[in-house]
Amino acid sequence: MTDSTIETKIVIIGCGIAGLKAAQELYQQKFCQDVVETAPQVLILEARDRIGGRLYTVDGLNDRYDIGAAWHHDILRNPLFQEEHELKKKNLTASKYIFDDDYGIIFDEMGTKLNHDKDLKLEVVQNELEKFVELEYFSELEYPNTSYFKMVQKYLFRYKDFLTDAQIKYLNGSARCIELWHGTNWKKLSGKYAQMDHQGRNAMCLFYKDVVDRMATEFPLDWIKLHSQVCQIKALKDKQERISNRNRNLEILTKDTKNGKITKVLCDYVIVTIPQSVLEQSLYDVPAPGRIEFIPKLNQDIYDSFQNIHYGALGKIIFEFDSAWESKHTRFYYTGAINNNIIDAVRNGQAFNGEYLNKIDSLTTPTYNNTITEQLDPQNYPLLFVNYMGITGKPSLVMLMQDPLTSYIEKLNAQDEKATICNIFKPILLNLFKHLGYAHANNHNGSIYSEILPGLKNIIVSNWTIDPYSLGSFTACYPDDDPIELSLSLERGQSMRIRFAGEHTIMDGAGCVYGAFESGKREAQYILNNYF
Amino acid sequence: MTDSTIETKIVIIGCGIAGLKAAQELYQQKFCQDVVETAPQVLILEARDRIGGRLYTVDGLNDRYDIGAAWHHDILRNPLFQEEHELKKKNLTASKYIFDDDYGIIFDEMGTKLNHDKDLKLEVVQNELEKFVELEYFSELEYPNTSYFKMVQKYLFRYKDFLTDAQIKYLNGSARCIELWHGTNWKKLSGKYAQMDHQGRNAMCLFYKDVVDRMATEFPLDWIKLHSQVCQIKALKDKQERISNRNRNLEILTKDTKNGKITKVLCDYVIVTIPQSVLEQSLYDVPAPGRIEFIPKLNQDIYDSFQNIHYGALGKIIFEFDSAWESKHTRFYYTGAINNNIIDAVRNGQAFNGEYLNKIDSLTTPTYNNTITEQLDPQNYPLLFVNYMGITGKPSLVMLMQDPLTSYIEKLNAQDEKATICNIFKPILLNLFKHLGYAHANNHNGSIYSEILPGLKNIIVSNWTIDPYSLGSFTACYPDDDPIELSLSLERGQSMRIRFAGEHTIMDGAGCVYGAFESGKREAQYILNNYF
Ligand SMILES: Cc1cc2nc3c(=O)[nH]c(=O)nc-3n(C[C@H](O)[C@H](O)[C@H](O)COP(=O)(O)OP(=O)(O)OC[C@H]3O[C@@H](n4cnc5c(N)ncnc54)[C@H](O)[C@@H]3O)c2cc1C
Ligand SMILES: Cc1cc2nc3c(=O)[nH]c(=O)nc-3n(C[C@H](O)[C@H](O)[C@H](O)COP(=O)(O)OP(=O)(O)OC[C@H]3O[C@@H](n4cnc5c(N)ncnc54)[C@H](O)[C@@H]3O)c2cc1C
Repeated sequence: MTDSTIETKIVIIGCGIAGLKAAQELYQQKFCQDVVETAPQVLILEARDRIGGRLYTVDGLNDRYDIGAAWHHDILRNPLFQEEHELKKKNLTASKYIFDDDYGIIFDEMGTKLNHDKDLKLEVVQNELEKFVELEYFSELEYPNTSYFKMVQKYLFRYKDFLTDAQIKYLNGSARCIELWHGTNWKKLSGKYAQMDHQGRNAMCLFYKDVVDRMATEFPLDWIKLHSQVCQIKALKDKQERISNRNRNLEILTKDTKNGKITKVLCDYVIVTIPQSVLEQSLYDVPAPGRIEFIPKLNQDIYDSFQNIHYGALGKIIFEFDSAWESKHTRFYYTGAINNNIIDAVRNGQAFNGEYLNKIDSLTTPTYNNTITEQLDPQNYPLLFVNYMGITGKPSLVMLMQDPLTSYIEKLNAQDEKATICNIFKPILLNLFKHLGYAHANNHNGSIYSEILPGLKNIIVSNWTIDPYSLGSFTACYPDDDPIELSLSLERGQSMRIRFAGEHTIMDGAGCVYGAFESGKREAQYILNNYF
Repeated sequence: MTDSTIETKIVIIGCGIAGLKAAQELYQQKFCQDVVETAPQVLILEARDRIGGRLYTVDGLNDRYDIGAAWHHDILRNPLFQEEHELKKKNLTASKYIFDDDYGIIFDEMGTKLNHDKDLKLEVVQNELEKFVELEYFSELEYPNTSYFKMVQKYLFRYKDFLTDAQIKYLNGSARCIELWHGTNWKKLSGKYAQMDHQGRNAMCLFYKDVVDRMATEFPLDWIKLHSQVCQIKALKDKQERISNRNRNLEILTKDTKNGKITKVLCDYVIVTIPQSVLEQSLYDVPAPGRIEFIPKLNQDIYDSFQNIHYGALGKIIFEFDSAWESKHTRFYYTGAINNNIIDAVRNGQAFNGEYLNKIDSLTTPTYNNTITEQLDPQNYPLLFVNYMGITGKPSLVMLMQDPLTSYIEKLNAQDEKATICNIFKPILLNLFKHLGYAHANNHNGSIYSEILPGLKNIIVSNWTIDPYSLGSFTACYPDDDPIELSLSLERGQSMRIRFAGEHTIMDGAGCVYGAFESGKREAQYILNNYF
């Protein structure tokens, strides 16, 4: 059944940031000293034809863009950002970055600017809302977890006497800002874990490709094997079995995605860094492209912890234009359409009960299951636009969207419906243009895009929900989820030899590049401590 | 020695909000049921000729002003604000309030507006600084406490590579904003306790006099005795002594501040609500106007806990003008003068050590001891201006200042040097006028003030540091202070019968009106639970 067999000490599955960091650590702490060895002591098996995983810098017509992760978050405690900064101080090559946090602009369906308004004072009440949610969960140890949507409604109901009509209305938009952090709808998001405690500013990385490429130079190039989709990990328990497999402890089967050939890789340790969504497939006996079969099956702890976690679907669209605009504000946040009737519904509410919540629910955008059959209107969803004019000086917009919009749009894109995509975002973009000061003359540059929106040259759409090696964006908490369980069970591992790393296996920096980075370091360290 | 003797069950010393709340609770929970009693069962002995204590609404020419506390803080958990709101909902008289939190304006010595600036991004780095301080104290259980000034310098030193020159400079101003919360200099303030975790918005109370007057109607009027300065509290330990004092447990001596007559008040319980600063005098054998002698002396716990706490000196000046201006922004924050050389000093710093800190210290405003001999220039101090045009629509400014400026200015005022005060604030006010859009024609209205500043009709200056019944503003933490100790020792009390209330006797809402309010309720409850 296998076409060839190779042997190594440690296998890393997946060459995202977690895998890269694990390899860098293993090399620097240990294998750089082994001058005599010829065959690689570590192998990274990567299914795709590129390294980086969810770090993916794509080329557009105007510039480059990170269509996956783009920011260094929490810079007061971000170890990757610090590593990059140390290189810079030593005048070694390091990626660039820019502190792009600014005051941004919030606008609604009519294009009205909402923030920094002396009368509306939206940020002031938004702050209070966030404090309210924090205090609620602090108030009782066993405070029942509900959706973020319900927590917002609880605040609005309880404090309506201290809020203006406009504040009641627009908090239903500004509160949804949080969806763009998680890639998930506020009605699905856990009220307890939705709000994040940012530890310092964010710095936009320009670009993550440079980080990925730099890290890949810090260990031998022949450690990386692309096009290698792992499909099975078998623990060799039996002594006979081990002897017939050159005394190794693990047997890993990997399929070459170009020619379908199966290679058997014998090794002693493995660090599995595939995304949570892909790993979840291992729990069930359903064949799927990226699925890894574990023999024996994943342990009960891991199985159980997967029942208390979900996965988001952050997506991006990049809109490239052919001429500059005025505004250098980096962030433009669109609230989604808000039904005016919500004000009366809140004002007239007598009790905060199921009936009341149903009423409010019916006045807000419905959630959808993962299989979307209807046509979705992006006007109903909050969106974040990053203005490249304020970052690289190029007339491009990077738009962030979330579940269920991401799945819907990425599917349209896979069907090559780019014109449809432009058309449905057109009303929002036209409103945004007012704030950008973009006034392109009506001469078309001949592209299909510019017939829809003057000056639009190109669009690039992400593919994370469709790609079998990501299946969405990153870990997310629904009500009743507990993120600690999965990260604990995976940190404990399947066994001493079958280890896990990645953004979903760690609490500090969960979902983030630097969390994945730290988890890679952790597992490299674990193996070195126990094995060498 | 005593001129007369009266008898009651419970004495409350001080008729501030703590004393008022204690009386209201005692009446509502217990004494309103006693229809037969003739003599008052509770007596509030108040030294001043008015009730309210540090709640003090004064009349100006344009309007009324709270020269003491003005805001309901932390409205998500403020029980006094809630009590007022409940009355309002029942259409009973309640004081008015306005949510005056807005985006405000920050300006520097040159009058330049600093906030909401796309390039400076001062609020963004100010936020990061605050997060840094929080994380530092979280990072180790035994993190050494230092001044807030040093924490700010630590942030600037450590993160200077990520800050622009302008950010380094102006953080030295915006960070001092905190001085106006504590009434104390950043070099004296505890780094650990300086930053507050605001629980919801602030509402400006219009006016606290109405709250005070309303509360005073909720128990019999004859409970209050003004002009009654308590000078001694004696526990009657000895059985004989008690018998000769009508079987009461406590003997309290109080002096009539108008005619000097001494009254002996016999009672069983006392709640002492005098300010921390006044109570501190009881520890030492030095005569002073508001001092109460305790026989026996205050217990060792209380004595010790006073060694780990300080007191601030927030002060106010009200400037009244004769014609309106444009701006309705409520808050204008002046950063104090900032020496440009601080940028180079930070950039060139090699190590964060004593030498470095001395250098930075010498470039910033020095601290002073309480006895100020030099002339102070208000230009060197951060100040907050509240714009009444945005609150009541009257052309007045309420300015908040802090230690050591407060002591200096209040002393000038006591010497009737109002013109001097106007003169030294003139440059700052002229800069502020640009932001207010105030352009008064140069016709003087004949007052001494308007010769200094066109259109200025009147100024009103607070007196808290000089008044023997306040001696400053409210509790404050210096490095190495621990606010929990004082509030615990006072909550435990001198004994079961000698109790304490007031803003300095409670952790939740320490320093605030609502903290004092809660402490009054707590002590009334304690006596009712143990005694009745
Ligand atoms: C749109 C988007 C925006 C984001 N924005 C940010 C941001 O701004 N800041 C931030 O900190 N984080 C952001 N994130 C999250 C961040 O990208 C991830 O947390 C991080 O990159 C995950 O790294 P990883 O190594 O854990 O996983 P990955 O990068 O996914 O690496 C896993 C690797 O495993 C490979 N693989 C999968 N299955 C197999 C198999 N069977 N065999 C072999 N190989 C396999 C994959 O191809 C992949 O290369 C974003 C993510 C998305 C999708
Ligand atoms: C300038 C300033 C601004 C402030 N701003 C705010 C604000 O905006 N919001 C907020 O929440 N808090 C604010 N505070 C704090 C707030 O005013 C106090 O926390 C609160 O009013 C204290 O109430 P209390 O009852 O504890 O003390 P007090 O109000 O001081 O009452 C104590 C009483 O004891 C009396 N007394 C003293 N000695 C004797 C004696 N020997 N015999 C008899 N009586 C005596 C005093 O005359 C006084 O009436 C401010 C304070 C100041 C000074």
